[in-house]
Formats: sequence, structure tokens, C-alpha cells
Amino acid sequence: MVKAKVLIRPKQGILDPQGKAVERALPALGFDGISNVRVGRLVELETDDPSALDSLCEKLLANPLIEDFEVELEEEALS
Amino acid sequence: MVKAKVLIRPKQGILDPQGKAVERALPALGFDGISNVRVGRLVELETDDPSALDSLCEKLLANPLIEDFEVELEEEALS
Repeated sequence: MVKAKVLIRPKQGILDPQGKAVERALPALGFDGISNVRVGRLVELETDDPSALDSLCEKLLANPLIEDFEVELEEEALS
Repeated sequence: MVKAKVLIRPKQGILDPQGKAVERALPALGFDGISNVRVGRLVELETDDPSALDSLCEKLLANPLIEDFEVELEEEALS
């Protein structure tokens, strides 16, 4: 069993309305000097076959047209 | 300017319907041996004042009742 972390983020150049909404809310809450907010998804899972993860991301977790994904494996030998 | 990555995940023990939905969709797509899927959020931003990030997460980005967050700083001296 391998623990994996999948980071999914909007592609460079793709509009990110959620990020824009966060940016716009910041001054009212007293936070200044924050920019380039991008909101994506984090998926954590355990798998027997880490080689299938790229295909899984393309088919189910991310939308490859508008999102980039990155798979990070945390080897945890629980067998 | 410091780049920061905020990882937000459902707390241990809190039901995660999105993760369950992913798990249930997996066999139909031909993926086996995947378990413990948890879906959270990834927020990337640039800030002048990294010390304010914890407070920002508590107030705006995460719901501390049901979510844990983790801030990772990637020092990038662009000043």
C-alpha cells in the first residue's frame, strides 16, 4: 500500500473564479499584500498500483483540458 | 514575495462524501486496489507577510471545525 497525494491546479492562463473570489475577499478581512491566489484540489489516497495513478487522474480526478496535476508518492511500506 | 501552498483536508473521522464518490466510481473505470480517498483543497498564493497565513486559513480558506490545514512556504526571493 502506497500513500499518494495528487495536487490538481487550474492551468496557467485559465481563469480561476474561486481564486479571484478569495482575492477580492481579502482586503475586507484585513489581509493585504496577497496576490496570485489559485484554488485547486488535493486528493489523498492509498493504492496498490501507483503506476495507474496518472491514468486515474486523467480519467476521474482532473479535467486535463483546464487542469494540471502532479502526483506525489509517500512510500509507506505497510504491505 | 513568498510563494505559499496551503493544503486543506477533511479532518480525520469527518465524513468526506466527495472522497466516497470517487472511491465508488473507481471499479467501473477499471481501477482496483485504491482506498482511503480523501478530497481536499489546494490553495496557492503569493504573500508579503507569511506570518498572517495561519489566520487567513482559519478565517477564509478552511473551515476549522471540519478541516485541517497545512501551510508550506516556498521561499522565492523576488522581493
